Amino acid sequence: MAEAVRQDKTARQLRMLSDALESGRLGPVRRLINTLAPAEIGNLLESLPPDRRSVVWGLVDPEDDGEVLVHVGDEVRESLIADMDPDEIVAAVEDLDIDDLADLVEELPDTVIDEVLKSMDRENRERFEQVLSYPEDSAGRLMNPDVVTVRADTTVDVVLRYLRLRGELPEHTDHLYIVNRRHQLLGWVALQDLVTSDPASPVNRLIDDTLTALHVDESSDEVARQFSDHDWVSAPVVDDGNILLGRITIDDVVDIIRDQAEHQALGAAGLDEEEDLFSPVRRAVRGRVVWLGVNLATAFLAAWVIGRFEATIEQIVALAVLMPIVAGIGGNAAMQVLTLMVRGLALGQVGASNASVLLWKEVRVASINGLLIGGFVGLVAYIWFHDWVLSLVIAAALLLNFLAAALAGVLVPLTMKRADVDPAVAGGVVVTAVTDVVGFFSFLGLATVILLR
Amino acid sequence: MAEAVRQDKTARQLRMLSDALESGRLGPVRRLINTLAPAEIGNLLESLPPDRRSVVWGLVDPEDDGEVLVHVGDEVRESLIADMDPDEIVAAVEDLDIDDLADLVEELPDTVIDEVLKSMDRENRERFEQVLSYPEDSAGRLMNPDVVTVRADTTVDVVLRYLRLRGELPEHTDHLYIVNRRHQLLGWVALQDLVTSDPASPVNRLIDDTLTALHVDESSDEVARQFSDHDWVSAPVVDDGNILLGRITIDDVVDIIRDQAEHQALGAAGLDEEEDLFSPVRRAVRGRVVWLGVNLATAFLAAWVIGRFEATIEQIVALAVLMPIVAGIGGNAAMQVLTLMVRGLALGQVGASNASVLLWKEVRVASINGLLIGGFVGLVAYIWFHDWVLSLVIAAALLLNFLAAALAGVLVPLTMKRADVDPAVAGGVVVTAVTDVVGFFSFLGLATVILLR
Repeated sequence: MAEAVRQDKTARQLRMLSDALESGRLGPVRRLINTLAPAEIGNLLESLPPDRRSVVWGLVDPEDDGEVLVHVGDEVRESLIADMDPDEIVAAVEDLDIDDLADLVEELPDTVIDEVLKSMDRENRERFEQVLSYPEDSAGRLMNPDVVTVRADTTVDVVLRYLRLRGELPEHTDHLYIVNRRHQLLGWVALQDLVTSDPASPVNRLIDDTLTALHVDESSDEVARQFSDHDWVSAPVVDDGNILLGRITIDDVVDIIRDQAEHQALGAAGLDEEEDLFSPVRRAVRGRVVWLGVNLATAFLAAWVIGRFEATIEQIVALAVLMPIVAGIGGNAAMQVLTLMVRGLALGQVGASNASVLLWKEVRVASINGLLIGGFVGLVAYIWFHDWVLSLVIAAALLLNFLAAALAGVLVPLTMKRADVDPAVAGGVVVTAVTDVVGFFSFLGLATVILLR
Repeated sequence: MAEAVRQDKTARQLRMLSDALESGRLGPVRRLINTLAPAEIGNLLESLPPDRRSVVWGLVDPEDDGEVLVHVGDEVRESLIADMDPDEIVAAVEDLDIDDLADLVEELPDTVIDEVLKSMDRENRERFEQVLSYPEDSAGRLMNPDVVTVRADTTVDVVLRYLRLRGELPEHTDHLYIVNRRHQLLGWVALQDLVTSDPASPVNRLIDDTLTALHVDESSDEVARQFSDHDWVSAPVVDDGNILLGRITIDDVVDIIRDQAEHQALGAAGLDEEEDLFSPVRRAVRGRVVWLGVNLATAFLAAWVIGRFEATIEQIVALAVLMPIVAGIGGNAAMQVLTLMVRGLALGQVGASNASVLLWKEVRVASINGLLIGGFVGLVAYIWFHDWVLSLVIAAALLLNFLAAALAGVLVPLTMKRADVDPAVAGGVVVTAVTDVVGFFSFLGLATVILLR
């Protein structure tokens, strides 16, 4: 039931929107949209076919335009930007936070970027250019240079008065940073501690100096891991000289974690995570056909193996009937091992120090599963074809393929990781190619040797 | 390079730990472990084989024991708890936050639960029992009843004085909640606004009443979506009568998002996300053999289809060589469509209102891919077997299977969602069963009709 509620919230909005769009009355559509958060509007736009998307996009409050652009995938973003004229784009993005603007910048026309840079004061322009100078998936690119700093040699009361004077704080400010004259990070003070402490107490008594800052070169994956290991809401970013450059906030980290998961899920099927649900057909074909081509190459390899045994199949057609079972189940077994390994590698739990223990465990699991499944398939094959030698051959081939699955499932991702290839994306093709080849070869090979003696 | 740095942090700790354990000097191991955050210790324990895990677990500072237990998977947690005597367990868990304790409670021995309940004061015991009364994946189970509330008819200065008196605030307190005498939620005040406002200003001027609270029955998935759509750090939980029951914080939400991703990735391979990397072999076999059995059933179905055409294969062995290509590539194409649909459904972007548009798009993509891949495979088949009718048959079968893949890829997950079955877990088996059956049937069927006229 909770499932139904959850699934339905966006779906219900979508249905209301569709109905309203169909009836052509745009007033209710506009009202509905402008009750939503920018991320929700983005989600809704992604779920609309291009013609309707364009209508709804025109109804979004221009004030939200920038935030909505931040919250959609690259392909949808391109289509939305294509619908705007340069002035609109400039108005939409010029008030964005620097980290969000940096996120958009590659999709923006050059003329727009020039306009936006011109509209910034010198300090902001320099900060923005600094953020852009870091590589895409790094802490430097994720950080927002807007931080609140205080000195250590003062009291809580003075800090509170300074904050009142300063006015509004950057979003998700849960800490103030303590820096010295050279802007080096000395520690941080929690807002929570500030409001519960005696106004007269010196700030340096509240400093938390046990925490470490993020280095500007750290990868976004490592940033995400640190945030979730330490339950941070925000964290400071420093350079080699410990100079405070900016801060990263949890909302960006949540996006990273979601993106990682999408990248894995879609990558495993050979899809780009930026693919729009309603990509133009040409684009979708281009995006998918490469992956199908790679899989086709491995399918031809498997066919070639079968081709080596044409003479055997000609004599015992039952082999052709049963051979997909050997290859298929081997592939399933390999995917199980691969999936566990991919997770272990992503969490840093698998390395040289425990690979051999894991391999040995998987070989034992494969032996038992191979005997169980192999025995069962052998039995069914006997009932079907009344040939106990054929039964033995398929059972033995399955056992061999389970062992191949365990070896490939453990060793392929380890090797890929070492070669800096993402096993979550490329692992599946390789391990199933192994189990296809070993499956067909062992089954047809054993049959040739034993049945055609 | 960043990749290497990231991957290596845990791996490096693991290697240091392994070396130290091997040398038998436990002093350095203890020192290393106790520099880590509880979540990092949990991650490390998960990466160790059972015997070493047990040694390292004994070296963890007892003060961290409870937090570490919160941060490991169910299976590992069980093995850690089995290593402790009841007193140790009570000491480890009695100081946990109520939401964390609720998370552990199912793995704890009854005697321990009784002890812990006895050690609580009445208010906490009642709160704890209330949290436990909500179903597992609901907002009620995730919330922490420990909230800071203030009245609206007061000033910033009074609130600050109250906070100083109260002392330490619950973790991740970024808002204070405004309630009336009946504890109904009227709004919330950001700590950020509190510290930047004039002490004399009335609290009700700072109230943010545009935000909506979470309902206690909401599913954890919906909670996660709301958090990421609104960039919340914490959110209040209320019941039907708008009575404030507790609050949920972003750290729990990050865990939900990670768990969802794991559930999808592991579920698609028929694995339980709680599976320990070093599960005992018996347990791993039990966990995986069911899934292999399900896949075996579909493999037998495919074999049965091939069996209908034994006579055809006997006459044209080339069919046996080529048939896995038709089935396999169809399966890949179906998985691509399924993966896009699963993501769309998870984000609420796919529903009755756009299903037909999507289906039509996928049919067009499938037609083009089917013609491209079918044409190419037909060409290769001609070069291999010099039989242009066979080439035509395989091209036609591939086109048919691509269309079947598009239909199954769109319709299977939609149907499953309606039947409350998770398409991320069960979708793959079904769509590949469809493409296996359609692939073998169309290829061998067309061959029988056309080649054996």
